[in-house]
Amino acid sequence: LDYQHVQVPFEITLWIMLASLAKIGFHLYNKLPSVVPESCLLIFVGLIMGGIIYGFNDRSPPVMDSDIFFLYLLPPIVLDAGYFMPSRPFFENIGTILLYAVVGTIWNVFGIGFSLYGICQVKAFQLQDVSLLHNLLFGSLIAAVDPVAVLAVFEEIHVNEKLHILVFGESLLNDAVTVVLYKLFRSFCEMPTIKSVDVFAGVGKFFVVGLGGVLVGLSFGFTAAFTTRFTKDIRVIEPLFVFLYSYLSYLTAEMFHLSGIVAIISCAMGMKRYVEANISLKSHTTVKYFMKMWSSVSDTLIFIFLGVSTIGENHEWNWPYICFTVIFCLIWRALGVLVLTFFVNRFHVNTITSKDQFIIAYGGLRGAICFSLVFLLPDFRRKKLFIAATTVVILFTVFIQGMTIRPLVDLLAVKRKRESAPTVGEQIHIRFLDHLLAGIEDISGHWGQYYWKDKLEYFNSKYLQKILLREYDQPKSSIVLLYEKLERKHAIELAQAGQLGHGPAHPSFLCSAFLCSSSNRTVITDQKLEDTPNPDVLDNMQEILARNLYRIRRTGPAYNRHTLPGDSEHAKEILILRHKSL
Amino acid sequence: LDYQHVQVPFEITLWIMLASLAKIGFHLYNKLPSVVPESCLLIFVGLIMGGIIYGFNDRSPPVMDSDIFFLYLLPPIVLDAGYFMPSRPFFENIGTILLYAVVGTIWNVFGIGFSLYGICQVKAFQLQDVSLLHNLLFGSLIAAVDPVAVLAVFEEIHVNEKLHILVFGESLLNDAVTVVLYKLFRSFCEMPTIKSVDVFAGVGKFFVVGLGGVLVGLSFGFTAAFTTRFTKDIRVIEPLFVFLYSYLSYLTAEMFHLSGIVAIISCAMGMKRYVEANISLKSHTTVKYFMKMWSSVSDTLIFIFLGVSTIGENHEWNWPYICFTVIFCLIWRALGVLVLTFFVNRFHVNTITSKDQFIIAYGGLRGAICFSLVFLLPDFRRKKLFIAATTVVILFTVFIQGMTIRPLVDLLAVKRKRESAPTVGEQIHIRFLDHLLAGIEDISGHWGQYYWKDKLEYFNSKYLQKILLREYDQPKSSIVLLYEKLERKHAIELAQAGQLGHGPAHPSFLCSAFLCSSSNRTVITDQKLEDTPNPDVLDNMQEILARNLYRIRRTGPAYNRHTLPGDSEHAKEILILRHKSL
Repeated sequence: LDYQHVQVPFEITLWIMLASLAKIGFHLYNKLPSVVPESCLLIFVGLIMGGIIYGFNDRSPPVMDSDIFFLYLLPPIVLDAGYFMPSRPFFENIGTILLYAVVGTIWNVFGIGFSLYGICQVKAFQLQDVSLLHNLLFGSLIAAVDPVAVLAVFEEIHVNEKLHILVFGESLLNDAVTVVLYKLFRSFCEMPTIKSVDVFAGVGKFFVVGLGGVLVGLSFGFTAAFTTRFTKDIRVIEPLFVFLYSYLSYLTAEMFHLSGIVAIISCAMGMKRYVEANISLKSHTTVKYFMKMWSSVSDTLIFIFLGVSTIGENHEWNWPYICFTVIFCLIWRALGVLVLTFFVNRFHVNTITSKDQFIIAYGGLRGAICFSLVFLLPDFRRKKLFIAATTVVILFTVFIQGMTIRPLVDLLAVKRKRESAPTVGEQIHIRFLDHLLAGIEDISGHWGQYYWKDKLEYFNSKYLQKILLREYDQPKSSIVLLYEKLERKHAIELAQAGQLGHGPAHPSFLCSAFLCSSSNRTVITDQKLEDTPNPDVLDNMQEILARNLYRIRRTGPAYNRHTLPGDSEHAKEILILRHKSL
Repeated sequence: LDYQHVQVPFEITLWIMLASLAKIGFHLYNKLPSVVPESCLLIFVGLIMGGIIYGFNDRSPPVMDSDIFFLYLLPPIVLDAGYFMPSRPFFENIGTILLYAVVGTIWNVFGIGFSLYGICQVKAFQLQDVSLLHNLLFGSLIAAVDPVAVLAVFEEIHVNEKLHILVFGESLLNDAVTVVLYKLFRSFCEMPTIKSVDVFAGVGKFFVVGLGGVLVGLSFGFTAAFTTRFTKDIRVIEPLFVFLYSYLSYLTAEMFHLSGIVAIISCAMGMKRYVEANISLKSHTTVKYFMKMWSSVSDTLIFIFLGVSTIGENHEWNWPYICFTVIFCLIWRALGVLVLTFFVNRFHVNTITSKDQFIIAYGGLRGAICFSLVFLLPDFRRKKLFIAATTVVILFTVFIQGMTIRPLVDLLAVKRKRESAPTVGEQIHIRFLDHLLAGIEDISGHWGQYYWKDKLEYFNSKYLQKILLREYDQPKSSIVLLYEKLERKHAIELAQAGQLGHGPAHPSFLCSAFLCSSSNRTVITDQKLEDTPNPDVLDNMQEILARNLYRIRRTGPAYNRHTLPGDSEHAKEILILRHKSL
């Protein structure tokens, strides 16, 4: 037995396996996930696992490594979020989202930091040694809403798209603020004196970290799109580029202390439309599937590890501090949302209702990012207190808020998400209105959202598409693409439906298997529907066969390791024959 | 700048990126890969990279880590090979393959080992200190044909299926022999005296290592199939199980010093048919695509690393020893193939021709497995000589043999692979003959291949399918599945062809986009073919629309992070309407 040799990959594989099996387990009992969010169940599994490890080893189970979290577990989730981000609601609400993400997070950091400092002054709590800077540092890591936790809960409650994008967009974009404030306060903690110039440098850093992330992301995104122009002869590695470039954008941003989350989201959103046009349909399915799979596994692992890491002796249970942390987190978030929404609503026609405000405030879940950041703190006396407080806040938000938000949404009758996407008609009308509004804005001289969108679209079709798309001379409108997709889907449905009621024992089956080779598929499908395999039909089939059999269809190319079965060029021939016969 | 923090994932991503870009580069110039095999080009890229690193750093570039090779790069390639292994030719020739793999490899090991020991006795070469055991150890690592190198070359020359499977199957299954002999001689080298009991234990180990690998592989394969029975509600993680269980089988086999390659191949071949029946079509596309992608990248990385590792100062250039190694490798392989084929041909009607024998002997390429094994040797005085000899043998076989095998195949007019798979008719006849032969064997009392195949098929449908398949009560014959696949493919082709010649500017386009919602797709498609958008057609369309519009089609479910767009249930409704209108 040589366990040492295979230990690392073996244990990683086993953890992923545990995560996947846990997911299957929950879905086998349909009632459970409808009451308790999956994230809570996973943390619970983690707690049990941690308890078992603790019980057997008699020492604290390993905590989630912050490096593993930030380098390997977080990027797939954020990439998935960015790639599948509904861009229209996102850009329509970008102002509000940025306000919540930047001003809201700063408000929370200082609010929580200063009020906890106030609590520390109460002699009875024995916390006088926690300085203001340490409280602010703690505030900076506990204030930020966590995208992983938000996604896990909001995916299941199906609130309307605007509400969803407000909370989720905020949780993604506040990363830039968190990175800056956390690093700022950490360096302040280690400085002997703080000059005012340092504070100003901190403010300047916001823009560098945020905009730098966007720039890094977009440049990698466009490079990815450009690369996929040249993959026509080697389709199998197309999906790889999507993952490689996104990951590189994240790592590069992290390397330069920019916001990795902002970078990977910009990269994914920037590359998406060009990559989708360049790569093959099967590559695209693989990209989508693998992103979902990867993010799903990462997400599961994060919650299980959160549970495992909670068990152990890393905590200092000073209950007053911990309880006040929870309370202040709730209060300052509620206040922040109220104040900011007041300003937002003054400038918008489509206001945010008070129900929505309540859900935004209540949906401010904390998760694994806080947890990883608190373990990254430099060692000092009260680190274990901060760890305990962070753990309690996370468990409180994920369990209490996460489990009660669904009943609350039902109770308040918050506007739900439309169950289906808009129809083609609606989409055409939306498109029409966009152009109309862009025209009105242009004439009236008001350079608003539609004006810029129109300009961007012009720039895109004039320059970007020519550089980034393989077949730029025939740019397909999104409606043509949609039409093609519908046609394809419909064709598959027809093919599948054409077989309903046919078992292998059907007498005409062998005959129709042979007839696959002929071109008169449609006629045959229709005849099969009547499901009466009488001699007439067979005669008819043979006649059709004799008339149309142009050559024997092959079932696909022979075995070859480096290619997947491709598309044949029979289609045109079939079509010509079919056309003639009509 | 914080490079340390992201170094590991950053460099891995960059290497993979380099490999992928190199692959794109070769395919941009179509002439190059048709003359030189890709493996040679990649080694060449590696040599250049190694030269650059050596030039800048003035020390040897890093050699490929054996752990990385065996734990991360080899498994994807072998998994891909096993999963896409054409099982019929493999099992039809299993006896011959095993003979080549076991007896042939032992023959080569001892042949090369003893003759090199003879060379070492020549005083002029100054090699007297290389003992017989060391020569045998060297023989054991240099004798085995490498699956990665064989695949890379044989994929491109398209010889007939039997020849391909003989060389490729041998290269896979000889792993068990290599593992045993390499470890045996390595431990003998470190033992003071060798007892005869140790030699017998070595012989016994063959069976343990080989059959153990098969057992481990099959048990993981069946567990994987069983697990996919329960993934109906959570399709996105289905592909994961295929990869996780295969990889676990490899690691488990390696852990117990069994043959990992044999294990992962058994796992892949064992699970394939059940997993394919259980998982969704899109999951299956993802599995296939990702396997190809992964193996393609691994394969590229291996050849690049081979090139990089060649540069440097790890070599002792004793040319007589090196040249004789190359010559003995060629001679003993040719002799082995001749002798073994003589016996094989005596017991088979379908003999292996002398042309085929030549290609089998000539196709015995060596590759990265030898290279990794030689670096794993314990340090002793002549290790650098062995490294040099191995490097030269690999480069000789990959460059000289790899580049000349294609002209030789042309020159000898070796029977080529059929360009396309058998037709449905042929498949039905093959199936019919199988049953007939099984019956004949049963009656005649001759328990041959067909008899056992029939028994296995019976056991499979009686027990295995009931346990491993989700819908075991309606097992679909492979012909029904093939028919479904053909129908689906044809439907997609029709849908795609139906749009040829249509640009977005077509006047009836908007109309037909709306008409997607109606069910009379076929009629409209036909009308579009006439390409005359006159008022009559539009009237006709409107009439059809009015008659058939049952409800507005939705374009797909709304945004949701955890699901992919699924299949709608419109198909039946459409079909009923369509049936009525005919």
